[in-house]
Amino acid sequence: MTASPTTASAFDRAMMQRCLTLARRALGRTAPNPMVGAVIVNGGEVVGEGFHPKAGEPHAEVFALRQAGDRARGATAYVSLEPCNHFGRTPPCSQALVKAGVAKVVVGVVDPNPKVGGGGIKTLQDAGVEVVVGVEEADCRALNEGFIHRILYKRPIGLLKYAMTLDGKIASTTGHSTWVTGEPARARVHHLRYACDAVVVGSNTVRHDNPRLTCHADTEENAPNPLRVVLSRSLDLPDTARLWDTATAPTLVVTQTGVRPEFQASLRDRGVEVVECAAVEPGAVMDLLYDRGALSVLWECGGALAARAIASGVIQKTIAFIAPKIIGGAIAPTPVADLGLDRMDAAIELERVRGYPVGGDWAIEGYLPERCWRRRGA
Amino acid sequence: MTASPTTASAFDRAMMQRCLTLARRALGRTAPNPMVGAVIVNGGEVVGEGFHPKAGEPHAEVFALRQAGDRARGATAYVSLEPCNHFGRTPPCSQALVKAGVAKVVVGVVDPNPKVGGGGIKTLQDAGVEVVVGVEEADCRALNEGFIHRILYKRPIGLLKYAMTLDGKIASTTGHSTWVTGEPARARVHHLRYACDAVVVGSNTVRHDNPRLTCHADTEENAPNPLRVVLSRSLDLPDTARLWDTATAPTLVVTQTGVRPEFQASLRDRGVEVVECAAVEPGAVMDLLYDRGALSVLWECGGALAARAIASGVIQKTIAFIAPKIIGGAIAPTPVADLGLDRMDAAIELERVRGYPVGGDWAIEGYLPERCWRRRGA
Repeated sequence: MTASPTTASAFDRAMMQRCLTLARRALGRTAPNPMVGAVIVNGGEVVGEGFHPKAGEPHAEVFALRQAGDRARGATAYVSLEPCNHFGRTPPCSQALVKAGVAKVVVGVVDPNPKVGGGGIKTLQDAGVEVVVGVEEADCRALNEGFIHRILYKRPIGLLKYAMTLDGKIASTTGHSTWVTGEPARARVHHLRYACDAVVVGSNTVRHDNPRLTCHADTEENAPNPLRVVLSRSLDLPDTARLWDTATAPTLVVTQTGVRPEFQASLRDRGVEVVECAAVEPGAVMDLLYDRGALSVLWECGGALAARAIASGVIQKTIAFIAPKIIGGAIAPTPVADLGLDRMDAAIELERVRGYPVGGDWAIEGYLPERCWRRRGA
Repeated sequence: MTASPTTASAFDRAMMQRCLTLARRALGRTAPNPMVGAVIVNGGEVVGEGFHPKAGEPHAEVFALRQAGDRARGATAYVSLEPCNHFGRTPPCSQALVKAGVAKVVVGVVDPNPKVGGGGIKTLQDAGVEVVVGVEEADCRALNEGFIHRILYKRPIGLLKYAMTLDGKIASTTGHSTWVTGEPARARVHHLRYACDAVVVGSNTVRHDNPRLTCHADTEENAPNPLRVVLSRSLDLPDTARLWDTATAPTLVVTQTGVRPEFQASLRDRGVEVVECAAVEPGAVMDLLYDRGALSVLWECGGALAARAIASGVIQKTIAFIAPKIIGGAIAPTPVADLGLDRMDAAIELERVRGYPVGGDWAIEGYLPERCWRRRGA
């Protein structure tokens, strides 16, 4: 029987938060795996710590057990995600914990896969290990919301990010947009890119803004740049663009089958990957990125593609950065173009909304209701 | 010599806040006068309180002195605005305080009129009364920002208020806009109307939204409804509109000289005041409202008139209510139409910005820089 999380002590919660801090060290690097942290405590003392650094390397529990050595016997292990129970590249962590003689395991959140969830816990319990589940569960779930979405819905989670003025414009009437927000908000966007596995834009953004889409503000040396993805049906793209420089980060262009083969070849010569699709649709792109293991995909596109992405059901969360400035413009571009919603009471109401200042700007983020994106049969 | 506000004790500050609470009882009712509250303290005990209820009635100090009676002798008087020093409908409050034998006067903020500011204080000091100035000065100034603006710049302060979705739209593509925000934000707007002396809209708003523009959510019986002002060059307005019902609140229509005289007559028959102007411009309307004594004017118009109001320099403050919902629409109306600003770095950056939740929505308010509205020579 699994103990209820209400029995968690302040110490348990602090240890689980430590697991999350450890797990975050691999932010943006674990796909298709989740971020996981583990802490082993014996006699009130931390004797082992670990996190999962990337796919193909050992799980968090393995590092923590190695560090703990003999002191794992009779200890309590904290782990932010249920220990795995299957033989993959490594033997199951549930068995490793049993073998090491751990007396108690505190789990943040169960495995999101309904087919395997609880298996690791059962293995532990069958071996006589006490198990507590659900300590700091909301935080553990939030850290891996991309991974959880991927497992449950067979697609990466989609985040739509935009920066707009307080009068709702993402650029001036002439398309000029540098910069809407201040340095702290832009640094936050770089961090978002860091945390995501791919960043998507459309051809308009490449033509007008010529972005880098890297997390270049991050001073960390091996900052994991996301895969930069351009959706372009017609390949009406400039010959030179910052995205065609693939030395710092990879670029993938998704286009219609057979379009501009010479330009495709020229892109490939520069290291850009070009994938031809029957239909360049947001859903097809998300399926492609799922197949490549992406957990989370950041849509940094203009209003037209943002509307197509929302209407296609690939966006689960929006993050709006709002600059307290007024630019005006009856035809200036806004964050989301036509969704076919005629009445205000038909608007998509976000859930779990959070607003907070970022430097001199404001961020408001929220989740789209499941009915807006849940696929039938998925 | 006037003591510095840094000498203010916690008791002084509490008494000044009490003055502000008293002053606010007359919110929306004092134009063209300021809101003022007064408290008289003798031996640590409040012996008199008062506020200025409306123009033509006695000042705050008079009510407080009346209540204090003989106990005013040797007492300390707190007053949120410098006591007046001129003979108007009432004798100067500075003399009344001296006559009552008050020993000390604590003033929130000096009279904003540079020609008379300090006169009341000087009269008190010349009579041997100790004076402290600047206690809770920021709050005292904020309460009367409309009055102060009126005195300094010979115009009411202009507030632009709008409600938009998180993707920057004030209505759907078809113009449908009920409701963008939730009940608490709409109640806040009713309170804003209550606090202002006039509310301005354009013909589009009358045609599309048919608003009441009253503070009808306020349950208080004699809630002071603002003067409702419609700007309409062509008088292309519906025959029936809620604004033509003048039983609950007055309505003023400002139009071009000579336009649709029969319709003008029909409006007048229903109690609507119609004023003809050579040019129906925001500045002319604010001058008209200044002449009528308005302290603050709330612009609740659509994007086109909002842009004209900003460009004309009649807006000092904006209050945006942002609903965490997405409606979409490439041509859906946004809060501010053309200002002629082509580059993002030319946008009007608001100052003294404040963001806060209102029910499930968010409000972001700020002040336009003085260079955007300061008139030369004014």
